[in-house]
Amino acid sequence: GWGCGSVVEHLLEDAQSSLADINVSLGIVLRLKNLELAAVGGSDVHVRMLAAPINPSDINMIQGNYGLLPKLPAVGGNEGVGQVEAVGCRVTRLKPGDWVIPANAGLGTWQTEAVFSEKALIQVPNDIPLQSAATLGVNPCTAYRMLVDFEKLKAGDSVIQNASNSGVGQAVIQIAAALGLRTINVVRDRPDIQKLMDRLKDLGAEHVITEEELRKPEAKNLFKNTPQPRLALNCVGGKSSTELLRHLAPGGTMVTYGGMAKQPVTAPVSLLIFKDLKLRGFWLSQWKKDHSPDEFQGLILTLCDLIHRGQLTAPACSEVPLQDYHRALEASMEPFVSSKQILTM
Amino acid sequence: GWGCGSVVEHLLEDAQSSLADINVSLGIVLRLKNLELAAVGGSDVHVRMLAAPINPSDINMIQGNYGLLPKLPAVGGNEGVGQVEAVGCRVTRLKPGDWVIPANAGLGTWQTEAVFSEKALIQVPNDIPLQSAATLGVNPCTAYRMLVDFEKLKAGDSVIQNASNSGVGQAVIQIAAALGLRTINVVRDRPDIQKLMDRLKDLGAEHVITEEELRKPEAKNLFKNTPQPRLALNCVGGKSSTELLRHLAPGGTMVTYGGMAKQPVTAPVSLLIFKDLKLRGFWLSQWKKDHSPDEFQGLILTLCDLIHRGQLTAPACSEVPLQDYHRALEASMEPFVSSKQILTM
Repeated sequence: GWGCGSVVEHLLEDAQSSLADINVSLGIVLRLKNLELAAVGGSDVHVRMLAAPINPSDINMIQGNYGLLPKLPAVGGNEGVGQVEAVGCRVTRLKPGDWVIPANAGLGTWQTEAVFSEKALIQVPNDIPLQSAATLGVNPCTAYRMLVDFEKLKAGDSVIQNASNSGVGQAVIQIAAALGLRTINVVRDRPDIQKLMDRLKDLGAEHVITEEELRKPEAKNLFKNTPQPRLALNCVGGKSSTELLRHLAPGGTMVTYGGMAKQPVTAPVSLLIFKDLKLRGFWLSQWKKDHSPDEFQGLILTLCDLIHRGQLTAPACSEVPLQDYHRALEASMEPFVSSKQILTM
Repeated sequence: GWGCGSVVEHLLEDAQSSLADINVSLGIVLRLKNLELAAVGGSDVHVRMLAAPINPSDINMIQGNYGLLPKLPAVGGNEGVGQVEAVGCRVTRLKPGDWVIPANAGLGTWQTEAVFSEKALIQVPNDIPLQSAATLGVNPCTAYRMLVDFEKLKAGDSVIQNASNSGVGQAVIQIAAALGLRTINVVRDRPDIQKLMDRLKDLGAEHVITEEELRKPEAKNLFKNTPQPRLALNCVGGKSSTELLRHLAPGGTMVTYGGMAKQPVTAPVSLLIFKDLKLRGFWLSQWKKDHSPDEFQGLILTLCDLIHRGQLTAPACSEVPLQDYHRALEASMEPFVSSKQILTM
């Protein structure tokens, strides 16, 4: 046999929807457990996980607030990178030593090793930084598709987003810059805001502005030298999303991919009718359902090109050993976290 | 000279945004006035107005709550039908006796006669009922475009709308039925609701349901025999629009064309992300800007075909002589008006 691996297992269905509740009940909802590895069948791949991040959507899934929920008990984590240890006799695309990431959400990446079906995995080049590989499969993919699929933008056009310091937000800044797009990045005010502004500008942000500043009349000055955006990317909802809408150019589109404020998107009727604004949503899992695995593989290679050229780096990460998952989960839910928690195996 | 005509003139810019205010200040904001007719230039057309309705958007324009506002003083009314009395020497498309409607909003139809430029007018057949001609240029055009331009629907598909008893709402019911589409029509509860339900069903409505009934769990029964709608038409906003979104099929579109509740459209983040719902707006004036006069003329002829076939009738109308415009305006702003006020000249 292949011995046994450790997993962070999601046990109970009653995790509540507030972050406070889940903080309290984390010890009940999740536990570290040793599992026997399954035998490697002909179409299977034995993978040793290397690193797996904790994303907001992982938390939402544990809370039961997500469009796709696993049968419980389940292994947590939807993103991460592993190395192939061994392959079954009918596996053709992968060989030992290859790096792989999940083809779809729900794989369970918070484990030391596991046996997966070949088609549950997508290969990534193993010459990119480990943290880039571990954080490649969800956030940069989401950022790229939202920048490309909703509005036909050309070099010099601008994009506005909130939650600009999130994993997707940082990927948006970098991919937009690589595409010649200019970004207006809204962040929540916080202690040491200048440090955050400097860091996002280093990534390629043209403007970084707080939610409060964006609501002031002087925010119009932003558009003296930057064209009005035709694309807005919303991960917050509530007032923040209404403010993005107010700054969109006529005919523009706002794409919602998250709801951190836990409030609905609120759109003044006049902006829909007289400014012809369009409100859409994006969910990478739906995009994958609507596209072939080859198209997803192509997207991954496009992003790896950017990584190779130094145009796309991983967000600031804190590596935490898997057995300390409890600490990493708590850190990931602190307000104003500036680094992504990555579990290492 | 051509003598003189009476107009309902909009004088002041300080009409406030609440209906109560405008009711009080109607006497100050609007007045009946005699105007000398301009000479008929080479490209001009002398028109004797026959009938012109009072639409909610006329009121919004007087209140200053509209995407297009005239320079004041201005003549009220954006829709209506007139008969050509005389034409200038360079006018080629029109001759005396022809019926005409405004090519665009802002013409000022609440007047007995006027001289317009030929290109401000669109011809309509003069063998359709007068009330149909007077109410053809805005509401049925809006209804048709919304049914056709946003989702590719085929016979048997369904559409959900609120404000189903409005001018647009009644046109939606009839045009949808003519296209083989099934409608779910939401109305506000009111005294004598059964009478309204019967009347809308007579027009071709498949279901008529109150806002309150739509919020109940039993509303799901609607979709036992009717497919979930991929198109929702929203003229209300607020809770009513959220409820339409909840009943849309995955991937469906809600088109907003009015905001009678004076509340923004509120969209739960999860419906945007996980159900891929799309929120759009429609404004006929923008459609006309984006399309040629010939395309508008084509739309009018399509609708006249439906009128000739008995598939599209005017909403229930109350005809009021122009000099009694004050009474007609007040009646048009009563809650639960079931007949459209039409000024006759």
